[in-house]
Amino acid sequence: MTARNAFYAQSGGVTAAINASACGVIEAAREHPDAIGKVYAGRDGIVGALTEDLIDTSCESPAAVAALKHTPAGAFGSARYKLKGFDQNQAEYERLIEVFKAHDIGYFFYNGGGDSADTCLKVSQLGEQMGYPIQAIHIPKTMDNDLPLTDCCPGFGSVAKYTAVSIREASFDLASMCKTSTKVFILEVMGRHAGWTAAAGGLASDEDGRDPHILLFPEVTFDEAAFLARVDECVKRDGYCTIVASEGVRNADGQFLADAGSTDAFGHTQLGGVAPTLANLIKDRLGHKYHYAIADYLMRAARHIASATDIEQAYAVGRGAVEYAVAGKSGVMVTIERESDDPYRWSLGEAPLDKVANVERKMPAEYISADGFHITEACRRYLAPLIAGEDFPPFVHGLPQYTRLQNVAVEKRTGRSFTV
Amino acid sequence: MTARNAFYAQSGGVTAAINASACGVIEAAREHPDAIGKVYAGRDGIVGALTEDLIDTSCESPAAVAALKHTPAGAFGSARYKLKGFDQNQAEYERLIEVFKAHDIGYFFYNGGGDSADTCLKVSQLGEQMGYPIQAIHIPKTMDNDLPLTDCCPGFGSVAKYTAVSIREASFDLASMCKTSTKVFILEVMGRHAGWTAAAGGLASDEDGRDPHILLFPEVTFDEAAFLARVDECVKRDGYCTIVASEGVRNADGQFLADAGSTDAFGHTQLGGVAPTLANLIKDRLGHKYHYAIADYLMRAARHIASATDIEQAYAVGRGAVEYAVAGKSGVMVTIERESDDPYRWSLGEAPLDKVANVERKMPAEYISADGFHITEACRRYLAPLIAGEDFPPFVHGLPQYTRLQNVAVEKRTGRSFTV
Repeated sequence: MTARNAFYAQSGGVTAAINASACGVIEAAREHPDAIGKVYAGRDGIVGALTEDLIDTSCESPAAVAALKHTPAGAFGSARYKLKGFDQNQAEYERLIEVFKAHDIGYFFYNGGGDSADTCLKVSQLGEQMGYPIQAIHIPKTMDNDLPLTDCCPGFGSVAKYTAVSIREASFDLASMCKTSTKVFILEVMGRHAGWTAAAGGLASDEDGRDPHILLFPEVTFDEAAFLARVDECVKRDGYCTIVASEGVRNADGQFLADAGSTDAFGHTQLGGVAPTLANLIKDRLGHKYHYAIADYLMRAARHIASATDIEQAYAVGRGAVEYAVAGKSGVMVTIERESDDPYRWSLGEAPLDKVANVERKMPAEYISADGFHITEACRRYLAPLIAGEDFPPFVHGLPQYTRLQNVAVEKRTGRSFTV
Repeated sequence: MTARNAFYAQSGGVTAAINASACGVIEAAREHPDAIGKVYAGRDGIVGALTEDLIDTSCESPAAVAALKHTPAGAFGSARYKLKGFDQNQAEYERLIEVFKAHDIGYFFYNGGGDSADTCLKVSQLGEQMGYPIQAIHIPKTMDNDLPLTDCCPGFGSVAKYTAVSIREASFDLASMCKTSTKVFILEVMGRHAGWTAAAGGLASDEDGRDPHILLFPEVTFDEAAFLARVDECVKRDGYCTIVASEGVRNADGQFLADAGSTDAFGHTQLGGVAPTLANLIKDRLGHKYHYAIADYLMRAARHIASATDIEQAYAVGRGAVEYAVAGKSGVMVTIERESDDPYRWSLGEAPLDKVANVERKMPAEYISADGFHITEACRRYLAPLIAGEDFPPFVHGLPQYTRLQNVAVEKRTGRSFTV
């Protein structure tokens, strides 16, 4: 077996755990010099492959690679860039093959969400479609936890922990201020069309359904009257009401409660503004003083409060992708298979990419309480192990020390530029 | 010396460290049974004194009291309630004396910011003004760091650490996404009219003034043209621009950039909305894709990422207040005196309350860079030790375990109700 080089790229919105997957890929690849030569990372994701802007990860010391495990975001740059179909943009696929050939790349490790799984699938078909044999393995990553066929998605556990910790802390704050000041607090969370991140806030809740009192999911049509009644009931009972609202909440007409109006490269609407919309509604209709926070990128970058389980799984799927490739597999996503809830046990598995690509896994109905405002016990059992354990980064002078790699460029060989 | 009881109350916006001060008060008081009988806490701050709703802290176990040190927000409830002058509302002072007499309260420990220092001053004058001798000691607390005559304010160091950690993490996120996606990220922070919390973001910055690139202070009049030019320059140089913006930023007319329009009990305007205002400006004028986060209460409640220095100081000023009272002092605030920057050394001191009350300490000009968009080395030297050290709370099942006290009510003795 002649060693061939590997290409690794990060795709889509980054997380606190995606670099742990990169660490897993690079460390595992270094253990297979017979099969894998160098690992070249795409600078700014797949864009780096198209522009032949490759990073030679072999220049990085073992310590630098290990530090990726506690560094948030995408160490090589990520991209929101989706390859079109073969028939729509053959030039891009020809360019990929040109670059892959020039650098003897035989493995394609793509670290992303649902859109990226689609790209990875297309690359895995390059052999068939365009006569260039390459093993493509998808490494799951999305804070939205919306990939199908895996028990959970690396990156989500840490966001879930951030959400639960943050709303617990804000609830303590509100409980102590409500007598004379703020009565309602809303935490707006990312998560697109799936309510997983909002659901995670429910883990902080006590048996009486407080702290937070209300969760708003994209899966549940927003019912203004029921919502206001519940807010008022909580304020009357407990003196205050804390809420976690998903950015993707929609009204009965299917419209986002607050639509920022712009769309990203994948054509997704850029969301934001649910919290102020709800806050104004509460102020107008109930008269309660409010505060709100919008977590936005802070939640997915919050490596300082990452879930140890999540980091471990992110690292494992990175390693797993390499092991699968070395074992000859292609066109699959590495999955996390749950074996038991308590004690929590899991192992790696695989799923065919054509069943993964472009499928969004929303919250199942049995995870949402009958009134639509909270999570069920089944959901708690599912979520609880995903936030378990702390994995604090090293701190120096009071700040987490995250690594910046050298990111040494690989010499270009195609002699051709390509504009994306 | 006959032991008299003590009254302790939390006032104004709570912090991640105020309960550490409560812990210090209660633990120190228990060491002086000859001077101090029981510590009664006001339920919901000073409101509890007026309504004779006192909490008997002697019912709490040493372990429960110790757990206050790692619990955010106000364990007894805080209040935004400011006593008027003697001449404007004598009934309130008469009521305080009635309650204090009924419960043999000889010590008044008030834990709050500038407005609270004013209340504490008035209480300290009850002896003179109304013939009721009481020793009143102010325990500093404010995330805004705007109290005069103390080197820093307990509660601020933890907020500063939260800000620096959060913008560092978000900057890593943005750096990895900027090639094809978001170019500008804005973190909006609380802090009213003083720029200390925004300044703290500068601690995360590297030598090239990146991550964050720009800090916006209330002390610097917002210059739209200069701001836009700097944003564009950063995006051109680094590919992205990260910004920490104080909620209190004002334009040349002295108006808040974004004014939420409502006011709190102290007559302060409730601020919010600077981030979306700036974001829209950037989008409209420069066309860059943006994201923003609004930290709001999350930042002041974030006990999980508290500064060890801050918690230690908060605890110390609580203990110090008791020691001062036992030594016969009154009408003073416990202060933190800096002895050296590096190595950082500090001790407790005191300041007369008439010099503290209603004075806001803003950022000195020498802490703000010449262009107004960053902090100076002098500011770094001041801020750096305040965020030093981690003091993680205990975690169970992935979540921080914060304590809820029993908060047993003291039997009422005045036989009279009082409406606030």
